[in-house]
Amino acid sequence: MSITCESEAKVFGAWHKQFRHQSQSLNCSMRFAIFLPQKATSSDKVPVLYWLSGLTCSDENFMQKAGAFAVANELGIAIVAPDTSPRGEGVADDDGYDLGQGAGFYLNATQAPWQAHYQMYDYVVNELPQLIEANFPVSSVKSIAGHSMGGHGALTIAINNQNQYRSVSAFSPIANPSNCPWGVKAFSHYLGDDKALWAKYDAAELLASAPMALPMLVDQGDADSFLEEQLKPKALVEAAQVHGAKLQLRMQPGYDHSYYFISTFIGEHLRFHHRYLSA
Amino acid sequence: MSITCESEAKVFGAWHKQFRHQSQSLNCSMRFAIFLPQKATSSDKVPVLYWLSGLTCSDENFMQKAGAFAVANELGIAIVAPDTSPRGEGVADDDGYDLGQGAGFYLNATQAPWQAHYQMYDYVVNELPQLIEANFPVSSVKSIAGHSMGGHGALTIAINNQNQYRSVSAFSPIANPSNCPWGVKAFSHYLGDDKALWAKYDAAELLASAPMALPMLVDQGDADSFLEEQLKPKALVEAAQVHGAKLQLRMQPGYDHSYYFISTFIGEHLRFHHRYLSA
Repeated sequence: MSITCESEAKVFGAWHKQFRHQSQSLNCSMRFAIFLPQKATSSDKVPVLYWLSGLTCSDENFMQKAGAFAVANELGIAIVAPDTSPRGEGVADDDGYDLGQGAGFYLNATQAPWQAHYQMYDYVVNELPQLIEANFPVSSVKSIAGHSMGGHGALTIAINNQNQYRSVSAFSPIANPSNCPWGVKAFSHYLGDDKALWAKYDAAELLASAPMALPMLVDQGDADSFLEEQLKPKALVEAAQVHGAKLQLRMQPGYDHSYYFISTFIGEHLRFHHRYLSA
Repeated sequence: MSITCESEAKVFGAWHKQFRHQSQSLNCSMRFAIFLPQKATSSDKVPVLYWLSGLTCSDENFMQKAGAFAVANELGIAIVAPDTSPRGEGVADDDGYDLGQGAGFYLNATQAPWQAHYQMYDYVVNELPQLIEANFPVSSVKSIAGHSMGGHGALTIAINNQNQYRSVSAFSPIANPSNCPWGVKAFSHYLGDDKALWAKYDAAELLASAPMALPMLVDQGDADSFLEEQLKPKALVEAAQVHGAKLQLRMQPGYDHSYYFISTFIGEHLRFHHRYLSA
């Protein structure tokens, strides 16, 4: 479980750092980023918000563009951003931006050639938190959030692991991937034809099939060009009603799919998580 | 003076937009970005802060990474970010990151092959403000700021045009380019051997040679890897004393050359400029 620091930068009196490690789940070298607020010390461990990014992203997009650090530092929340897939020359890939490297969809692949490395679900749920809690002044109290493909990842991981997280939030999540082009393409390649397996990675299907106890906050811009074809927040709202899940979906007028949208509301998401992380 | 919108995104209730136009000064097609706060309407024109970026940057780096929009919107300040050089297939270039496209140094080149397009000083001082004031709900009240090469640009342009700007600020500026490798390389190529011409584009030399009436705020990280060899803030402080210029240089402990540093203090820079823009 050794990690190597690749960069560090002071920000708002706190620290942003990037580390590399050999992932057991993914069977390749991986980089992640961590924001450590000033409150984080060996005697005062802070909770962690895991952030899952969208298609084509790495650990850097959120950290460079979201503008989250002033509020995260004020609230004393660490933020960990993994990469969005396994990486490297020996890792299967595809010419499309929506399959292969940069497009891991936070699932455990079962199909060749993907299954050898594409185990992002295990990486995010198990390996990465163990690594973080062993190496940094953080507690095991955590929440999870993400954007687009990462919003899908955050919602499905939280619903499937309700004892591990306190809360979940998403920007523009792929809410019903079994019924949109991005999801159908990815799930067909990574998981094959078994639709029962797909359901474990579909937030709308999960909410329709069993109770979800954690609070969920979702922001969706109504000027998002992916809204109708790919994201389908209505399916999430309808599914949440089946078992009375605590979903707050906010349609944000005029906002698109970009980090300009995320930067506008990330402070509110951090305060939402803080209520549960500090409870 | 026609401009074409290439993107727009709502952010903090306001707007970030990118436009393309044919530049007369630069003799090529150029893109710039503008942040328009909610206060900007045809009946309520707002002042403008011009932001000049550093080596390798475009109009996008500051807009995506600085986290400036919440405070700029609160204060009612528009922000305009030009590109850092002329661009395009017909524009002279160099393999180095510190010469040619992405490295215009905000000067008017006199030497071949650069002089045909590299007239960034005229572009920033004259053409761009005319274009902005003709096309957007902004007043002619303006200040200027920048980072690294753009900090050099902001300081020299403000000192040379004290009637046009209200205030100037810089992060990690190249303060004495005639005496550092980046500056000597660029000035030699763009301006030739005439050191008298170099002096017009050297903030430290300008401050030593004549009074500067505008308030200047400079932030410099003491963990900046370019500090000793390239940036030379001490030369700026010493030069400012010659004619009693109003320079506040803040050495910021632990900060590096990155946008993490800029994002930490950009709010203070905006409030600094607001005092003079609203006076």
